[in-house]
Amino acid sequence: MTHPTTPKPSPLTHFDAEGQAHMVDVAAKASTHRVAVAEGRITMEPATLALIQSGSAKKGDVLGIARIAGIQGAKKTSDLIPLCHPIALTRVAVEFDVEAATNSVLCRTTAECTGQTGVEMEALTACSVALLTIYDMCKAVDRGMTMGGVRLVEKRGGKSGHFVAPALTTL
Amino acid sequence: MTHPTTPKPSPLTHFDAEGQAHMVDVAAKASTHRVAVAEGRITMEPATLALIQSGSAKKGDVLGIARIAGIQGAKKTSDLIPLCHPIALTRVAVEFDVEAATNSVLCRTTAECTGQTGVEMEALTACSVALLTIYDMCKAVDRGMTMGGVRLVEKRGGKSGHFVAPALTTL
Amino acid sequence: MTHPTTPKPSPLTHFDAEGQAHMVDVAAKASTHRVAVAEGRITMEPATLALIQSGSAKKGDVLGIARIAGIQGAKKTSDLIPLCHPIALTRVAVEFDVEAATNSVLCRTTAECTGQTGVEMEALTACSVALLTIYDMCKAVDRGMTMGGVRLVEKRGGKSGHFVAPALTTL
Amino acid sequence: MTHPTTPKPSPLTHFDAEGQAHMVDVAAKASTHRVAVAEGRITMEPATLALIQSGSAKKGDVLGIARIAGIQGAKKTSDLIPLCHPIALTRVAVEFDVEAATNSVLCRTTAECTGQTGVEMEALTACSVALLTIYDMCKAVDRGMTMGGVRLVEKRGGKSGHFVAPALTTL
Amino acid sequence: MTHPTTPKPSPLTHFDAEGQAHMVDVAAKASTHRVAVAEGRITMEPATLALIQSGSAKKGDVLGIARIAGIQGAKKTSDLIPLCHPIALTRVAVEFDVEAATNSVLCRTTAECTGQTGVEMEALTACSVALLTIYDMCKAVDRGMTMGGVRLVEKRGGKSGHFVAPALTTL
Amino acid sequence: MTHPTTPKPSPLTHFDAEGQAHMVDVAAKASTHRVAVAEGRITMEPATLALIQSGSAKKGDVLGIARIAGIQGAKKTSDLIPLCHPIALTRVAVEFDVEAATNSVLCRTTAECTGQTGVEMEALTACSVALLTIYDMCKAVDRGMTMGGVRLVEKRGGKSGHFVAPALTTL
Repeated sequence: MTHPTTPKPSPLTHFDAEGQAHMVDVAAKASTHRVAVAEGRITMEPATLALIQSGSAKKGDVLGIARIAGIQGAKKTSDLIPLCHPIALTRVAVEFDVEAATNSVLCRTTAECTGQTGVEMEALTACSVALLTIYDMCKAVDRGMTMGGVRLVEKRGGKSGHFVAPALTTL
Repeated sequence: MTHPTTPKPSPLTHFDAEGQAHMVDVAAKASTHRVAVAEGRITMEPATLALIQSGSAKKGDVLGIARIAGIQGAKKTSDLIPLCHPIALTRVAVEFDVEAATNSVLCRTTAECTGQTGVEMEALTACSVALLTIYDMCKAVDRGMTMGGVRLVEKRGGKSGHFVAPALTTL
Repeated sequence: MTHPTTPKPSPLTHFDAEGQAHMVDVAAKASTHRVAVAEGRITMEPATLALIQSGSAKKGDVLGIARIAGIQGAKKTSDLIPLCHPIALTRVAVEFDVEAATNSVLCRTTAECTGQTGVEMEALTACSVALLTIYDMCKAVDRGMTMGGVRLVEKRGGKSGHFVAPALTTL
Repeated sequence: MTHPTTPKPSPLTHFDAEGQAHMVDVAAKASTHRVAVAEGRITMEPATLALIQSGSAKKGDVLGIARIAGIQGAKKTSDLIPLCHPIALTRVAVEFDVEAATNSVLCRTTAECTGQTGVEMEALTACSVALLTIYDMCKAVDRGMTMGGVRLVEKRGGKSGHFVAPALTTL
Repeated sequence: MTHPTTPKPSPLTHFDAEGQAHMVDVAAKASTHRVAVAEGRITMEPATLALIQSGSAKKGDVLGIARIAGIQGAKKTSDLIPLCHPIALTRVAVEFDVEAATNSVLCRTTAECTGQTGVEMEALTACSVALLTIYDMCKAVDRGMTMGGVRLVEKRGGKSGHFVAPALTTL
Repeated sequence: MTHPTTPKPSPLTHFDAEGQAHMVDVAAKASTHRVAVAEGRITMEPATLALIQSGSAKKGDVLGIARIAGIQGAKKTSDLIPLCHPIALTRVAVEFDVEAATNSVLCRTTAECTGQTGVEMEALTACSVALLTIYDMCKAVDRGMTMGGVRLVEKRGGKSGHFVAPALTTL
């Protein structure tokens, strides 16, 4: 007779042995201080970038609004990503670098909590929502903007240890 | 004599003449059928891509869950993006292509409404949330996945006419 | 040569010809006045029912709170049910009948809109949330309450015509 | 003189001594591992059940989508049920049994947390939302489906001890 | 014979003839362009007001963030106020006046839609949320700030005609 | 060498040294039992106040509905106020005093948690949402109602010690 064995668990932990999605049990994980850093970039026409730069200084503060949207986006992560746990974030920060050389704005986000599960999705969601907000604010003058290089840069505090992404040679 | 001139309006329509953000008045715009198509891509290790492919066929349906998350994300756009209008979407679709040649999943989203404002943010948000969900489902085996090439592909139905993005040579 | 035919569409309209979920296109449907009525019931210990009855008159208004929760639940339908369209509801009502003979509270909900898609999910969601709220308010004294008979009672205004559910002989 | 006594507190803990609703103080309760299991059932035409069964295997995955909706619904419990506390769920699972003998799908949900208040509402909400989603997905072919038998099956970890619902003889 | 009369309807339209709350039927109302203007004020220590003023010009943009919060708050009105209809807002604007003479910031909000129900709650909610956000941003230096004078200033476009609030002599 | 000094931090803790908004790091703060009490008032025509009073006793329970809205509003604070942390509230209460002498309803709210950050915004948000709900319920008969005196009354449990607001001589 075949199949005396139980099914092999999926390496994707969001699925149980039958391949059904579930919100993973984290009750037995240690409650530790967890930090995740993510980044991403939106590339645009030079004239659009100039508008953003002048706006931040004077009027039409695109990046100030995108920063708020990113912070609020981090708090909505478990509402947006089906299998994410609700998390009591202790800190969220969103920073921007306007890079004239690449005609782009780099967004770097940090999320932190003291809890039983990591915050990389919160950092990545903050970054994506911040970039989408820049797109929204500037789309009247530039529909061809592209968002890319959205990735986890660093993660620490969980049992999987300290992760640092390799440096990028190009975006 | 002071102030003979009014301030020049920002080309960024989300700001008024004083540079203050507002939710733009769309009451005078025509109510038309509007369509937007967006796309984006998540690049990963070949072994991760293989897991997604086998899962879709058998168990652990990563893409099925990301599709639902993307559709629900489109409905949350005006909640996520500060100056977006609430929109009565008439259709949302999310499609995936698993591309072994580039070790990536391409996500293409379509949003439609009959209304006074475009749906490009809804299509882009659906795409970003779908990609983030793939990241979440696979991060246990691959932390280095990168999301990129998130952009508007097509838009029609508004007064700015039919926009089609140029073809990409590389991502 | 194999496969000269396109796949047969699923009779479940929430799936496309490939079996992928989507939010169905309703742009071509007529905008009509649509009404849906749903009902459901929560059965409990006689003493619990007596508490609800006395509370409505005097203090501890369980049904008043459940009514508000049901109305608010109707407004959250497209957030809860993945493939539901966002709908501009024009009316929601939630009524209760305390039925001593069956030791139960019957909840009947009505949802209305003028639009391109039906409101049966809004009526059913209002009913389920109202019943869950009664459960929550009374669970300190009765954990064994059961919710049942949740169903669509009537629907009109769409192209599928006027639906009236058959009378129930038993719950 | 009448009324030297303070009013008798309602046995319904969601009301204070004056009968006013409040969100109960749980600060003094022990933080323990809490588990709740709920179940419910949706009954339908045999042909509808057959569509669900074929879909799960091949295309049109009704139950996969309902599972995701149920998990997300659990996370929205405190938003839906007025007097529920926000809870940091540590696990949510949603399982289905397709029962040809009763022409129904049985849904069984589990919610867990480590905290000061029980998770029975989270389990019951997950169950109701999952059943509503099945209704939504299949309503194009079967408007007469009925949801019932929604109840708490088991609860443990609180000061009220271990609750196990009696077996059902009929639904 | 008793009861030849039906109960007199409440002048509060959110209740039916039995005094039960409902979301009022607006299907028969004309779809018109509707505008509402609200205002409110937060009063504080002179030193706090000075911080806000310097921040707006240089860094720490309290009012920019409160403006975004107010606009987003307007979009959440039907989620916050139980019997409000969901509304497709066509415009939201939030303006501030820093008034040194009264040690206060005046907030004036405008909401607009084309629809069947007024937008005064949207304007008032935007105003309240903007003031609460100013409180939050400044509470580290001034706990005694007070919000007041929150009221409808103007409303037009509905069947009740053009409402203009009388001028205030004092706040 | 230029720039030997770091910028002076803003006394507004929601901004970093560069004046950029962030969600403040609270990970190092003690987890203590925290309580905040807020109050506010809505002033109206005597006839409107009479309607509210009769309604509470008989039918049309304005204050019962406003209480629920206030409690639910407290739970939405971190969604409404951009830089608020998500908080696991352990208690929320909303009380009303109908004051014929001032033609007003006084609303007093209490929020509590055991955590690393205060709950004054939760108490203030509950109060504002409760007052807005009273406005909404009564606006059909009285558009000139005004909300005021919204302020923090008491706060304890944080490192800043016990705050008690001075008594008001007039509202």
